[in-house]
Amino acid sequence: MKKDHISNAVIRRLPRYFRHLNDLHDAGIIRISSSALGKSLGATASQIRQDLSCFGEFGQQGYGYNVEALRNEIADILGINNRHTAIVLGTGNLGRALMENFHFSRSGFTLTAAFDTNPAIVGTTIGSVPVYHADTLEEFLSHGVADVAVLTVPQRVTHETADRLVKAGVRGIWNFTNIELNITEPGVIVEDVHFADSLLALSYMISDRDKGN
Amino acid sequence: MKKDHISNAVIRRLPRYFRHLNDLHDAGIIRISSSALGKSLGATASQIRQDLSCFGEFGQQGYGYNVEALRNEIADILGINNRHTAIVLGTGNLGRALMENFHFSRSGFTLTAAFDTNPAIVGTTIGSVPVYHADTLEEFLSHGVADVAVLTVPQRVTHETADRLVKAGVRGIWNFTNIELNITEPGVIVEDVHFADSLLALSYMISDRDKGN
Repeated sequence: MKKDHISNAVIRRLPRYFRHLNDLHDAGIIRISSSALGKSLGATASQIRQDLSCFGEFGQQGYGYNVEALRNEIADILGINNRHTAIVLGTGNLGRALMENFHFSRSGFTLTAAFDTNPAIVGTTIGSVPVYHADTLEEFLSHGVADVAVLTVPQRVTHETADRLVKAGVRGIWNFTNIELNITEPGVIVEDVHFADSLLALSYMISDRDKGN
Repeated sequence: MKKDHISNAVIRRLPRYFRHLNDLHDAGIIRISSSALGKSLGATASQIRQDLSCFGEFGQQGYGYNVEALRNEIADILGINNRHTAIVLGTGNLGRALMENFHFSRSGFTLTAAFDTNPAIVGTTIGSVPVYHADTLEEFLSHGVADVAVLTVPQRVTHETADRLVKAGVRGIWNFTNIELNITEPGVIVEDVHFADSLLALSYMISDRDKGN
């Protein structure tokens, strides 16, 4: 039933639906009408229906959605049940913040290792994840490649690190470096986290408000 | 010329246009056709034209866009020239990572202070920004409110901290806590940074690729 091409806009909305359905489920809500779900998501019922229709039939006319079932379906679509693995490159403040505070497992990811060059950190663990020397990256990945590398290295070593990851077989990069990666290898998927895009949207909204719009 | 209501989708695209035009400008590109600009942004020329038309007339038929002029116009729309101020609440790993590595000034923001309760950090500076005790937040803000508070406190004090900020007059919150804020005060704008949304989009894309789609 799945359509051949799912637009980027839909892919971007699905995690939000998932997050929201999780919250509803945690709040003990069992069933929700499509219009109420839409309202709480700032979307119309028909947009949600259309987004979900890319993946099959969900909900029932006159019944609405079963919250848990829909959450589980979306989890499945997002690949949360695929047991993806991830490694962290660079355990500076940001890498460490993610390792200590971000719940990778809730997104279906298991952190298997982190890499750094700082002798004070190499050989320790963060959370329960071991930190190895960056020189051993290729050797580590030769025993089983990670699905995703979380790139939190300093900007001066970003390109070099990304190249090494791709050469070693990593096909997914979660890029926090604010540097555009130049990866030509087909099949490598890069997801950039641009803090500035978010702050600039906030800047727009407060500027617009302060102009009295 | 500005339309009354700019859609959220447009607001989300503008920072990307800005970032891209900056890169083009840095690369010495003076003028670009609307179709080439679209192509490099993964959008159609007409979508870009339509997005920009919300704010007035840009570019010229047959000439394309002047990169620097368009960048400056978008900077203006985004409020980058409005000299916004920001404070940081919580100088743990994430707060520190942002203060040390994120270029607030490139988005038009000046960091004026940070707040924490850790006696080892209070009284120091990060970058050149002073860290004050969180108890002094209200007093600090009574001398001139910050436009935005960057919320990087632990989850257990998130709601309390947000309430204090709003009471003290802060009207913009950049929320990294992964907790939904319950703010009822009108005019307060919250921009949430949800790392999980980004990781789940990546999860979808690698799952989809690995299924051979």
